[in-house]
Amino acid sequence: MNLSFNIAGHAWTVPKAVQSIQIEKEMGWPEGWSMRYSGVRKRHWVDHPDSNGELGAKSALKALEAAKMSLKKVDLIIFAGATYDYPLPNQSSIIKSKLDKSNTLNIPCVDVDTTCLSFITGLEIAVEKIALEKAETILLISSEVASNGLNPDSREVYTLFGDASAAFVITKGKNITLMNSMLKTYSEGVYDTIIKGGGNKMPPKMYDFDARNHSFQMNGKRLLRLGKRELPIFMKEFFSTIGINPKKIEHCIPHQASKAGLIIFESCFPLKKYGVRVVSTLEDYGNCIAASIPMTLSMHLEKNQIIEGERCLLVGTSAGFGIGAALLQFNKIA
Amino acid sequence: MNLSFNIAGHAWTVPKAVQSIQIEKEMGWPEGWSMRYSGVRKRHWVDHPDSNGELGAKSALKALEAAKMSLKKVDLIIFAGATYDYPLPNQSSIIKSKLDKSNTLNIPCVDVDTTCLSFITGLEIAVEKIALEKAETILLISSEVASNGLNPDSREVYTLFGDASAAFVITKGKNITLMNSMLKTYSEGVYDTIIKGGGNKMPPKMYDFDARNHSFQMNGKRLLRLGKRELPIFMKEFFSTIGINPKKIEHCIPHQASKAGLIIFESCFPLKKYGVRVVSTLEDYGNCIAASIPMTLSMHLEKNQIIEGERCLLVGTSAGFGIGAALLQFNKIA
Repeated sequence: MNLSFNIAGHAWTVPKAVQSIQIEKEMGWPEGWSMRYSGVRKRHWVDHPDSNGELGAKSALKALEAAKMSLKKVDLIIFAGATYDYPLPNQSSIIKSKLDKSNTLNIPCVDVDTTCLSFITGLEIAVEKIALEKAETILLISSEVASNGLNPDSREVYTLFGDASAAFVITKGKNITLMNSMLKTYSEGVYDTIIKGGGNKMPPKMYDFDARNHSFQMNGKRLLRLGKRELPIFMKEFFSTIGINPKKIEHCIPHQASKAGLIIFESCFPLKKYGVRVVSTLEDYGNCIAASIPMTLSMHLEKNQIIEGERCLLVGTSAGFGIGAALLQFNKIA
Repeated sequence: MNLSFNIAGHAWTVPKAVQSIQIEKEMGWPEGWSMRYSGVRKRHWVDHPDSNGELGAKSALKALEAAKMSLKKVDLIIFAGATYDYPLPNQSSIIKSKLDKSNTLNIPCVDVDTTCLSFITGLEIAVEKIALEKAETILLISSEVASNGLNPDSREVYTLFGDASAAFVITKGKNITLMNSMLKTYSEGVYDTIIKGGGNKMPPKMYDFDARNHSFQMNGKRLLRLGKRELPIFMKEFFSTIGINPKKIEHCIPHQASKAGLIIFESCFPLKKYGVRVVSTLEDYGNCIAASIPMTLSMHLEKNQIIEGERCLLVGTSAGFGIGAALLQFNKIA
């Protein structure tokens, strides 16, 4: 079955900017370290207690406005992300409560989590629901607040992550075709990106507080090795399934994992060399977990960078360890 | 499009039993209080550090065994639930790593969360993916550990919840038809079931530890009022959409929310009165969050209670506040 859809509106939001130079000064780290090692010149961090809910609702409202659509038209809200305001209820319900002040629109709220690849998974599910006529208008939101989970002990992590949200109004239509989507989970790397504390393995009630346990930890070297080994195999399968030569696609939005991650991606899969426009927002926004891909896509679309007949690959890695991709063919631009 | 599927195998697992009488003795609460107020005689609680991963993997292995199927055959793993081992990575990746000891099967792992209704949402997504031929064999797992989030200050909550898991191997086929599925989120009740601490609203790094913030809190009275008002409207819409008289269905598996919840469900929607077999596992297992519905369904199926041509309604409420339902028509029993 042909999986096609329209993007009726889209938007992205970031909170206040935090310059790397400012962090380096405060922490007593060498000036320029962040840009050199993480590739991040600035990122955006929320002012607590603002978090996923407020940030996500802002993009959702802007995306609906761009679509010239009221919330009433929305059949389903999907939150696609890894961080959240509360362990319970789900994040989509929190965001909806901020959008539907009258409490009269009983739109179903579903959360989908494949960590950094959640947007790709959420988009796939949205497009499938539209194909099956289970929904006509889906509000797909990624909103991530990483800043509360950063440990200054790890300079690499602390300087890498930013907060951001993005929202897409996905509707029934033929403007875009989802040509392929694929996700693979490589359990070898399951514990290489982790937040150890706060779930059932280390409930706050049972363990003495240690900030490191509530911080994002990653074994960057192992992850890069795993990505380097598996990415070329994944990509070969992804493109051979649909019989498309990856050199012939026009745009690529990779997850903004890290400077090293983007370099390795290009070394495994030299899209830039083939003339594909590989978009990066890492320098100005950092790694915004699941919000990176949709924010970068939204920016790219708002600059009218994609024209009719072109194809855009969304691709990235995630905790789990996962590799995922989706190829969009733009038949017509809204 | 006809949404049909087979259940190739299913299973459920609980950890060790904890009798209400034992809790009442330890806490100095009146003997029989739990049974009288929560309707729970015993529930099952994990021995820490066992949690969602171990419990979920057990049901998954048993379900695969029942299906006479190896993990190799599985195209997709969906975790459908509200509690987790770690805030990151997602729970499905953790469970997969326990099933795929060789780390050679790169099965995609997706988490879906609509709190207590996650199994219904996960089943719907699984069946849709099968209809679109995006997958042929899906391992759908709900595994919930509530016991770490219970506050002895609230006798009602402490005695109500249990830990459990269930898994279903969903395959391509015509044995069962998903006749309808529906979810609605009523934002009026968004904060009436909540765990306040541990997310971005109350990060452990910023707040002094208070066990109540890491405990499940519910405003039972408000929830019951909301359920009582909305459930009849929801059900009327659910059945009128498909033109089926609810009196004519044979089985109903309600979410085991609470004794009061089950009484109110029957008062709004007197299925028992019509002769529908409404199955309850509350007394022996408590409310097992998203694992309640699939565990109760798995038990009901293993006792061969459903015969060809019969229909089974899955229905419940969730944090959010949500109401959801799915109607399964059993064309043939495996």
